[in-house]
Amino acid sequence: MKALVLEEKGKIAIQDCQFDETLGDDDVHIKIHSVGICGSDVHYYQHGRIGPFVVNAPMVLGHESAGVVLAVGKNVRHLQPGDRVCMEPGIPDPQSPQSRAGLYNLDPAVRFWATPPIHGCLRESVIHPAAFTFKLPDNVSFAEGAMVEPLAIGMHAATKASIKPGDIALVIGAGPIGVVTALAALAGGCSEVIICDLFDEKLAVAANYDGLHAVNLKTGNLAQKVAELTSGNGVDIVFECSGAKAAIATLTEHAAPGATAVLVGMPIDAAPLDIVASQAKEITFKTIFRYANMYPRTLRLLSSGKLRVQPLISQTYKFADSVAAFERAAAGHAADIKIMLEME
Amino acid sequence: MKALVLEEKGKIAIQDCQFDETLGDDDVHIKIHSVGICGSDVHYYQHGRIGPFVVNAPMVLGHESAGVVLAVGKNVRHLQPGDRVCMEPGIPDPQSPQSRAGLYNLDPAVRFWATPPIHGCLRESVIHPAAFTFKLPDNVSFAEGAMVEPLAIGMHAATKASIKPGDIALVIGAGPIGVVTALAALAGGCSEVIICDLFDEKLAVAANYDGLHAVNLKTGNLAQKVAELTSGNGVDIVFECSGAKAAIATLTEHAAPGATAVLVGMPIDAAPLDIVASQAKEITFKTIFRYANMYPRTLRLLSSGKLRVQPLISQTYKFADSVAAFERAAAGHAADIKIMLEME
Amino acid sequence: MKALVLEEKGKIAIQDCQFDETLGDDDVHIKIHSVGICGSDVHYYQHGRIGPFVVNAPMVLGHESAGVVLAVGKNVRHLQPGDRVCMEPGIPDPQSPQSRAGLYNLDPAVRFWATPPIHGCLRESVIHPAAFTFKLPDNVSFAEGAMVEPLAIGMHAATKASIKPGDIALVIGAGPIGVVTALAALAGGCSEVIICDLFDEKLAVAANYDGLHAVNLKTGNLAQKVAELTSGNGVDIVFECSGAKAAIATLTEHAAPGATAVLVGMPIDAAPLDIVASQAKEITFKTIFRYANMYPRTLRLLSSGKLRVQPLISQTYKFADSVAAFERAAAGHAADIKIMLEME
Amino acid sequence: MKALVLEEKGKIAIQDCQFDETLGDDDVHIKIHSVGICGSDVHYYQHGRIGPFVVNAPMVLGHESAGVVLAVGKNVRHLQPGDRVCMEPGIPDPQSPQSRAGLYNLDPAVRFWATPPIHGCLRESVIHPAAFTFKLPDNVSFAEGAMVEPLAIGMHAATKASIKPGDIALVIGAGPIGVVTALAALAGGCSEVIICDLFDEKLAVAANYDGLHAVNLKTGNLAQKVAELTSGNGVDIVFECSGAKAAIATLTEHAAPGATAVLVGMPIDAAPLDIVASQAKEITFKTIFRYANMYPRTLRLLSSGKLRVQPLISQTYKFADSVAAFERAAAGHAADIKIMLEME
Repeated sequence: MKALVLEEKGKIAIQDCQFDETLGDDDVHIKIHSVGICGSDVHYYQHGRIGPFVVNAPMVLGHESAGVVLAVGKNVRHLQPGDRVCMEPGIPDPQSPQSRAGLYNLDPAVRFWATPPIHGCLRESVIHPAAFTFKLPDNVSFAEGAMVEPLAIGMHAATKASIKPGDIALVIGAGPIGVVTALAALAGGCSEVIICDLFDEKLAVAANYDGLHAVNLKTGNLAQKVAELTSGNGVDIVFECSGAKAAIATLTEHAAPGATAVLVGMPIDAAPLDIVASQAKEITFKTIFRYANMYPRTLRLLSSGKLRVQPLISQTYKFADSVAAFERAAAGHAADIKIMLEME
Repeated sequence: MKALVLEEKGKIAIQDCQFDETLGDDDVHIKIHSVGICGSDVHYYQHGRIGPFVVNAPMVLGHESAGVVLAVGKNVRHLQPGDRVCMEPGIPDPQSPQSRAGLYNLDPAVRFWATPPIHGCLRESVIHPAAFTFKLPDNVSFAEGAMVEPLAIGMHAATKASIKPGDIALVIGAGPIGVVTALAALAGGCSEVIICDLFDEKLAVAANYDGLHAVNLKTGNLAQKVAELTSGNGVDIVFECSGAKAAIATLTEHAAPGATAVLVGMPIDAAPLDIVASQAKEITFKTIFRYANMYPRTLRLLSSGKLRVQPLISQTYKFADSVAAFERAAAGHAADIKIMLEME
Repeated sequence: MKALVLEEKGKIAIQDCQFDETLGDDDVHIKIHSVGICGSDVHYYQHGRIGPFVVNAPMVLGHESAGVVLAVGKNVRHLQPGDRVCMEPGIPDPQSPQSRAGLYNLDPAVRFWATPPIHGCLRESVIHPAAFTFKLPDNVSFAEGAMVEPLAIGMHAATKASIKPGDIALVIGAGPIGVVTALAALAGGCSEVIICDLFDEKLAVAANYDGLHAVNLKTGNLAQKVAELTSGNGVDIVFECSGAKAAIATLTEHAAPGATAVLVGMPIDAAPLDIVASQAKEITFKTIFRYANMYPRTLRLLSSGKLRVQPLISQTYKFADSVAAFERAAAGHAADIKIMLEME
Repeated sequence: MKALVLEEKGKIAIQDCQFDETLGDDDVHIKIHSVGICGSDVHYYQHGRIGPFVVNAPMVLGHESAGVVLAVGKNVRHLQPGDRVCMEPGIPDPQSPQSRAGLYNLDPAVRFWATPPIHGCLRESVIHPAAFTFKLPDNVSFAEGAMVEPLAIGMHAATKASIKPGDIALVIGAGPIGVVTALAALAGGCSEVIICDLFDEKLAVAANYDGLHAVNLKTGNLAQKVAELTSGNGVDIVFECSGAKAAIATLTEHAAPGATAVLVGMPIDAAPLDIVASQAKEITFKTIFRYANMYPRTLRLLSSGKLRVQPLISQTYKFADSVAAFERAAAGHAADIKIMLEME
């Protein structure tokens, strides 16, 4: 079958591939329909590695996807051929101590699409465990189904934040993950969410959502906006989605006493944290790694209309043009949020 | 000043009253504008008591109110004359062990408007502690401000439920508290909320809200609606707002394993709970008593538009007609949700 | 091999059995050393059923056990032949929604030793999943290893209670589960634990532990003991381990505002709960079903000496005498806590 | 009355002082018996300031104390003259938003003994709010009563850690706060606690406690000790009590996936945190500022014998010798844990 292969750093191409996979009793065979391009796909394309994960052999890219069930294994009950589905890309060892504790995303043995040496899903079809394959509600499109993967990160951050109804949150960084985190926080009970960034182009899409207050850190006044919305108390929750050291250094400045900060962004190396300032407010810092158990609840919020992600899809390319799509993504246009690929 | 006085069971009248109150340094003097009639006001009117609280002397009714600040004590910083405000009706001893632990609503010494022997606020003006007086956002009306009190109960229930983004809730009972609890659950992160009752008239208002699914227990199929919305897993949260023994007996039937049930309704006497069925799903039962720290976050959700309560105000009477308003309330029309009184 | 078989209600015998089991790649073969008799074993012996679980075919009894590893499957890394181990008796489907959420004990598909139609472990050897087999620390005996199973229930109750350091707990019911729950609560951070029952014989063992205060409900004064230890505030946690309706009806009487009650005992049918009294204190009720992820932490507390269970083992019988042991257990001596069987 | 006064940086003396205090209705008059010297007292003595808190006028030192009630205000019910008591040194505004939420330690308006410009308690007697004055159990000495203040910090850290029964904790730093935190963690449910430091003298006292494993970071092998006690999984909880940047940089190295780290130590300026390593384990960081609601539970654990602090009192000086005591404290002997002063 055709697949988009990263042969080595800087070199991608659509190729004919064969995969040594068979449909197990608990598996599903899925024809891929839509695949979103993630920053990590682009990073592997440009750098050939992310931290300890190095591309040493040709690897199919892609892990945000939706498609149609072609066949199901004999134990599978909740799916049947023809079902429209999206797929959770990380498969843990279900018997690891982490999995048994409900933290399967922390299992060191997780196999995750397009994380070396595991092939991704930018190909005509995949075999996937049924337990990690989820039926799309009728009113959720394939492209929205593919968006569940990045949304799941925002949803995991919002869930970890233990939002109370009517909380006010601040999201630092308006990249794709910042925006989906802000939307998840709003859907998850915040009354208002402030989102800040240095670039107006990145803030523009966020600014169109009701309840999202976009602040440009260079031209706007974040402190004033926080004071205005929180009666001077500070925000209940901070989502750090920039990975910028300057942001982390001043993370608790806008937070209320007792607030929670969720560290979503991944700074390149150790970042300075003002511990004494954090202690004076007894800030709790949560950190997140991907997500666990987020697909069903994300699909429910998409279906209910409380999460709307259509405005986040900046461009859609045909699979045949996927090299061009990756080049566009690699160029890093600030206004691009999500580039979607459609298989034929 | 004029006040609506419950002289004894079954006997209310507008009277001229004098109150032995002076403006303390931490107090506010407030001209009352709007007061909602609560089921407890009606209960005192009809029965002269609620459990251990007995009306032994004439008592002013009313505890859901909003008004305008006339004067402030010398220590008050966050309010000034002319401010539109709503008031939290229960004043605890701030030094009780419960208050110090953040559970001030559980302080046995709480003084609560219109709970004998404390006078309520159905009068021209009140003196109230500034710490329990909250400024109304410009886009929140006096009537909405008066609605914050019953809303706070739903908000407290929703907060105690620890809703995760995308949870599905079931509310049992579509009286005023059931409806505000359902709205708080939706605003607080649920993707969908099912609300059930025996009477179509009570369900009619709820059915008009997006995201609320009204089910008549006599003519509809609750089990089917739950299965459809939860893929057969059961709801994540049950809010019991009916106080009906039959509802409590089967409380966990529609709940998912690991679900939370919040007991809001107050059954007249001990109610049978199926503990073994609850254990098989490890249901957690939370109970609530009024609310604590709910006014600011309720006002934020009203102001943001995520909570809309205008449709819940069934009738508005002038204060001069408040005896008629209480008679209407006492008649118990199923379609009435909230009767509001307006002072001249 | 020899096994203790419940042929039908009231009829047990040691028999020669053959089990259709093979050592899988993730399994362990274990020679059984010690098996404790549980109330449920006795209940199946006497009544042939527990609720919906009916003994329709001969079934081997026993689920509290420890032994020695004979052989391990090829994927097993953490165990090797000769290791002394104890075994968690319930095996869930790791891919169920409950298992993925860390609630594997709530998976409806759990296969649990000596719960029809699954054979128990009162036999010479078993094949068991390595993931549910735990190495005994050197200073933990086989009998203590077999005690981990009932202890895990108390540990699960204590864990669910979210004990804060220095809390005071009340345990209602001094049967085996009441006593292990009280010990787990003490080891888990309580400063003092009150345990009450109607029978001095059952309280006698508990009374010997430092920090456990035994109160006979007929001859002692529970209210006075609670007031004395809690400065009149009430206990922070109530563990209901009796399953008695009278106890459940008055469950919150001795609890502090904001307290947690853990429902461990299983009343035969729906039990009356005083919801209004619970609401006035905002009591949270947790319910438990067996346990999850409790074996490693229970073994650590046994090894550290913070949990001591040797005094709870009332009698030890040889396997050859196991019918006599079951007759002793069925006789229901109040002073018996745990009867242990030793395989030859 | 006599008091130990810090006149300016480096200059302390016993002086005759007069305090402008009267016994309010909710206050207690207490004759001081014992006062512990805290690192902050010594820091003000040596440096004249701690961060933003500057000694601009003579100030009485001391905030860890116990004494005897001389008189009580007319509203005081739980205390009477002659009662032995200890006192919580920080008095918040009970009407602040933080106080009402149960976070009174985070109220910016807290008045705290011996934090400029508030006088401390190293004097013959004090007037103190009854709500922050706690009766000592008969078996708790005055010196132990004075130790409740530093213990409360460890207890607050242990409470925030949400210890589950049988957890294993690592404490970094064996100064006074490290040791009391380790003891609180053990009393609060940990099966074992590892405590590490660079100095054997500081580890010596800790090493004498059952359940505390002392590791010298220069001469011992922390990684090996962690692996041995946790079966290679890492510790469940890390208490950072050193404030050392090197410790903070590697904070999560020894932690299990899903672990909690409590930041107790106060590094002088922003400290580098390895966020990506923390995310891979989804570490939660809690920060603490003093304590709230910890005195009653600390006294219960002292009275029960689960917390033993007598071994931590290195020296006892008479009040007349308190300048010498401060000089000893300022010299910084590694083996000194707590120097206690006794009033005549």
